[in-house]
Amino acid sequence: MKRVSTAILGASGYTGSELLRLLLLHPQVDLVAVTSRTHAGKAIAEVFPRFAALPGADLEFIEPDMDAVAAGGAEVAFLALPHGKAAGYATALLQHAVKVIDLSADFRLRDAAVYEEFYGAPHPAPELLGEAVYGLPEARREAIADARLIASPGCYPTSILLPLLPLVREKLIDPSTIVANSMSGVSGAGRKAEVPLLFVECNESVRAYGLPKHRHLSEIEQELSAAAGHEVCITFVPHLVPVNKGICTSTTATLVGDVPDAVEHALRSTYENSPFVRLLGAGGNPDTKNVTHTNFIDIGWHHDARTGRLLVLSTEDNLGKGAAGQAVQSMNLLCGFGETSGLLGV
Amino acid sequence: MKRVSTAILGASGYTGSELLRLLLLHPQVDLVAVTSRTHAGKAIAEVFPRFAALPGADLEFIEPDMDAVAAGGAEVAFLALPHGKAAGYATALLQHAVKVIDLSADFRLRDAAVYEEFYGAPHPAPELLGEAVYGLPEARREAIADARLIASPGCYPTSILLPLLPLVREKLIDPSTIVANSMSGVSGAGRKAEVPLLFVECNESVRAYGLPKHRHLSEIEQELSAAAGHEVCITFVPHLVPVNKGICTSTTATLVGDVPDAVEHALRSTYENSPFVRLLGAGGNPDTKNVTHTNFIDIGWHHDARTGRLLVLSTEDNLGKGAAGQAVQSMNLLCGFGETSGLLGV
Amino acid sequence: MKRVSTAILGASGYTGSELLRLLLLHPQVDLVAVTSRTHAGKAIAEVFPRFAALPGADLEFIEPDMDAVAAGGAEVAFLALPHGKAAGYATALLQHAVKVIDLSADFRLRDAAVYEEFYGAPHPAPELLGEAVYGLPEARREAIADARLIASPGCYPTSILLPLLPLVREKLIDPSTIVANSMSGVSGAGRKAEVPLLFVECNESVRAYGLPKHRHLSEIEQELSAAAGHEVCITFVPHLVPVNKGICTSTTATLVGDVPDAVEHALRSTYENSPFVRLLGAGGNPDTKNVTHTNFIDIGWHHDARTGRLLVLSTEDNLGKGAAGQAVQSMNLLCGFGETSGLLGV
Amino acid sequence: MKRVSTAILGASGYTGSELLRLLLLHPQVDLVAVTSRTHAGKAIAEVFPRFAALPGADLEFIEPDMDAVAAGGAEVAFLALPHGKAAGYATALLQHAVKVIDLSADFRLRDAAVYEEFYGAPHPAPELLGEAVYGLPEARREAIADARLIASPGCYPTSILLPLLPLVREKLIDPSTIVANSMSGVSGAGRKAEVPLLFVECNESVRAYGLPKHRHLSEIEQELSAAAGHEVCITFVPHLVPVNKGICTSTTATLVGDVPDAVEHALRSTYENSPFVRLLGAGGNPDTKNVTHTNFIDIGWHHDARTGRLLVLSTEDNLGKGAAGQAVQSMNLLCGFGETSGLLGV
Repeated sequence: MKRVSTAILGASGYTGSELLRLLLLHPQVDLVAVTSRTHAGKAIAEVFPRFAALPGADLEFIEPDMDAVAAGGAEVAFLALPHGKAAGYATALLQHAVKVIDLSADFRLRDAAVYEEFYGAPHPAPELLGEAVYGLPEARREAIADARLIASPGCYPTSILLPLLPLVREKLIDPSTIVANSMSGVSGAGRKAEVPLLFVECNESVRAYGLPKHRHLSEIEQELSAAAGHEVCITFVPHLVPVNKGICTSTTATLVGDVPDAVEHALRSTYENSPFVRLLGAGGNPDTKNVTHTNFIDIGWHHDARTGRLLVLSTEDNLGKGAAGQAVQSMNLLCGFGETSGLLGV
Repeated sequence: MKRVSTAILGASGYTGSELLRLLLLHPQVDLVAVTSRTHAGKAIAEVFPRFAALPGADLEFIEPDMDAVAAGGAEVAFLALPHGKAAGYATALLQHAVKVIDLSADFRLRDAAVYEEFYGAPHPAPELLGEAVYGLPEARREAIADARLIASPGCYPTSILLPLLPLVREKLIDPSTIVANSMSGVSGAGRKAEVPLLFVECNESVRAYGLPKHRHLSEIEQELSAAAGHEVCITFVPHLVPVNKGICTSTTATLVGDVPDAVEHALRSTYENSPFVRLLGAGGNPDTKNVTHTNFIDIGWHHDARTGRLLVLSTEDNLGKGAAGQAVQSMNLLCGFGETSGLLGV
Repeated sequence: MKRVSTAILGASGYTGSELLRLLLLHPQVDLVAVTSRTHAGKAIAEVFPRFAALPGADLEFIEPDMDAVAAGGAEVAFLALPHGKAAGYATALLQHAVKVIDLSADFRLRDAAVYEEFYGAPHPAPELLGEAVYGLPEARREAIADARLIASPGCYPTSILLPLLPLVREKLIDPSTIVANSMSGVSGAGRKAEVPLLFVECNESVRAYGLPKHRHLSEIEQELSAAAGHEVCITFVPHLVPVNKGICTSTTATLVGDVPDAVEHALRSTYENSPFVRLLGAGGNPDTKNVTHTNFIDIGWHHDARTGRLLVLSTEDNLGKGAAGQAVQSMNLLCGFGETSGLLGV
Repeated sequence: MKRVSTAILGASGYTGSELLRLLLLHPQVDLVAVTSRTHAGKAIAEVFPRFAALPGADLEFIEPDMDAVAAGGAEVAFLALPHGKAAGYATALLQHAVKVIDLSADFRLRDAAVYEEFYGAPHPAPELLGEAVYGLPEARREAIADARLIASPGCYPTSILLPLLPLVREKLIDPSTIVANSMSGVSGAGRKAEVPLLFVECNESVRAYGLPKHRHLSEIEQELSAAAGHEVCITFVPHLVPVNKGICTSTTATLVGDVPDAVEHALRSTYENSPFVRLLGAGGNPDTKNVTHTNFIDIGWHHDARTGRLLVLSTEDNLGKGAAGQAVQSMNLLCGFGETSGLLGV
């Protein structure tokens, strides 16, 4: 069985620790380096007691030194770093011929101007935007397999794009009517010591945030526009709900031509060979509890005949299919492994 | 200080126990009868240990005998019963000259045919539909004060109607574009011994349900249509989230004439004398944790200039302003008490 | 009805905001000053949206200036400050003839050496230890009524002492065999921006901490020793569980003389005139959900005939009877109000 | 790699579905039959959407017919049935030469009289008690490997026995002083449609139950007595806390001879070759969040020099090491597989 040597840069947050989990358990992966300024010198098992006693958990965190990472033999590096910081590491790693799977937003947008509009700073490495591949495996398997630099999509975009892309592409819905409401678990906000993320502030609390122009809108609209063949602008309303993990997205849009049967056909034909997309069909109500701790996304839909709208519902684990799982899925494609290798845990 | 003698019929569910709480603590209320087939013969304090040691908590539950309720001196009776069952009790109580505040759906709809469409059975007492008042205090203070029979609105309708009614009435939004997404705490599903409502099934779970035609749509559209002056049909997507109490509703609609400033004016002028409506203004993001265990509804809004849509957000306690608190607010109006009497607990 | 003017010093944490809630709603209290370095200049309603629209919620936070607090007319001041900081304010307030109810640990111990042993610093105002009254109302009603300086007990001590004091005093249990296990809601750890208190770190987590010598042991043993008439040393195992509020304490001790009936008699005779102690009797299993958001403590017990041990169980709200509610109860006694005034909310 | 054909009887509860999860993912297992009266005729994927798309999830539930189970080729059958029901199936399966791993209490006790005392009915198959092996792998690896009938221990006993057995065996603690407090997730109470297990009843609730003589005491004391060489009687206080999965057990006992160093030595030497026991050492505070969804048990301890007591803390997943994981671990031993085969997921 083929194997690959990997590194994780910035493995101390929630996305990073989910990457750790997946790579420590992956049957074709050797984890050769993990970096963290905070934890340098400590073993994985010490920082994350959950992973203690797993093979490989005695690996020690090192400072984020790209020369050392490359010297250690990493062939693929995962970047679980804040946007703005990832780009510099990516540049250095590519120079060392290490392939990069970036989980930050740095390389998701084709247009540096859009990056600046949504992220409030000039793009840190615009010369790489041309070759970066937006790493949604279900949409770009071949490009991912050939890439040097993969921009792994965010959790909200994944939950919105996978159900919508086939419908927009086949012009079954009017893109200008799309309204997406998402409810995210608190891990989506990161492992930051901030009062609004305290247990007591989040438990027994439901609240919208990031309105009306959440950063993830930029990549969502970029991909929907590409599918539609014209510019698409949508409304996106994210909420924080008191679960650790999981995103539930409920999207409405006006059906074009009132052909609800075509919806199921479009979804089935698009995803028939996609092992992580589970289609619940018409009337299906996905539940986050069925996808947490997995790489699956569950999709159901309803025809609201009274209003002529389609309701499309999806659930995924924001850290799994919405982040670390998806990145490992891209790694599998990149390395010529089976797409589900190491990703069927539930 | 004026006082009133009250009864609660069906006090063993979540809405009933919240009514109990509010009436036991209300400074102008004597609770003279509580009924429950299950608990007849037991004291309130025994069934609800939370209320033990409160004055009045030694009152015993009785069988639901309307003659006994009337003989016990009740002037106002609250019905916390399933739809279909409440109507019969209401008829009997009115014959005894006991005023009725019904928290079920039985008298919320003006049209018996719509009731049958949404509730799947002929209306049990259509002759009373003409005089029943839809008890949204902020919309019908005078009618409530004069009523014999008040149909207290449901939790979802309250969370949707209070923010939208002024906007629809003043034609600031296009009613045909309304999409309302609600997230409700689990108490909204009732105190039923069913597997899907078990802790383990709801905790770490987010899911939509009741699609695409939830029963509450009927009263929401009835009231919006009355405000619009024409028939309104909307999309409503309810979700269950793992909190005990609280509803967060996020509604989008296309602005007519692109006049966001008029939104704030419409809300402020409508609710300036409504003590339980707290307006957070443009940019405000209400949080259920600020309204649970209270009778307040918090409302904020955002102008999504990119799409021309308005986002209106509201939060309330589904058992408070969405059920028991609102019913007591109507009782205060009915009895000539101050509107906030017994309802300012937080 | 008599009234009192009060101040809260340090009202931005969880205990402070619960004090705010109780005092804003108290029918005999005028809140004349609230201090917070962080929030100075902002209104209560702005900092705590939950309290918006309540009478008095437009009061602005000020800097913690004791001269200003006294000049503002405060007759009683509540200190919701960290230990070590409270003592200085208390000294200044007493000089201004403002009575002090301190919710920190600063004046709970009679012996400055024990303070230094458990809190790791010399006592900041040892000259006041002699007159401070350990403010457990059920144990010291008269002393509290006459005090200038009340040291309001901590949440764990209250949950342990109220059930045990009568049993130790009447020598029904062997104090050297006491083992107390407590499970506390996360608000007990304070409103601190620290990673271990994040939602994701506490949700789906149960863990012991503070072992084997939690600071609260010092006051627990002081009071048990006084009741026993000799020095008592116990084992105390606190745990953090994922609820916002509530403490459940399960204590075991060997029965002396095997007289389980005497247990109920001792509890009943001690607390027959204590309105906030609810005795569930032999076989009673208290539940935190019945006491959260209240000032009640529920107590039940079991005789473990197989081992000769007594199991005593108690539940309280760590912010209510375990902190703010208890402090207000002491204020009621201090001011000659009814003991339950403003404290019967559930 | 060797393989085994297995069946699960009673796979619709929480323990059964965790068994399903582990066996569907196990690299050496073919799942050939699953039974459930409720779900007969439906595929696993339909009943448990979480498992949809996994290889093997199209297997259909059948009625619990032991002839059919044996005819289907099962070599090992797991019984996830209520106590009292499992014994009959076990008898039938053994007659078909199918080895049995019973997760109920039916074969855990050596003495039918103790069974009757704690379970309130005569033992249904006392003739099998002699050969049943109490399946705690860390304590009886060889016996498990040779068994026909394995009685897999309960969740509470596992969490109490693994830390205590070495200490009792080596006489480091006085068994008569043992007090064990456990906090269990709600899945431990089973998937029963009962009001006390509803989300709203368990969330924000902490409560003791099953006092003073919980059924699991019988097997705990049986095993401790065997280790001590004399009859041991302990106090056990179980609590329900609002997490889905996880047990935290805090046990105290008086140290004999005041030799805390011997504690660590006894634990280390006993478990040095036990891959699922993670020793955190002196001062270690295990957290359920590190063991949920795993087969690990984490153990830490503290010396309470003030009282001469030892505090021993353990955490495990009540459905993992406390039930399904442990049963699969026994199957691995029984089948000659590696002990960790299929059990290293985290």
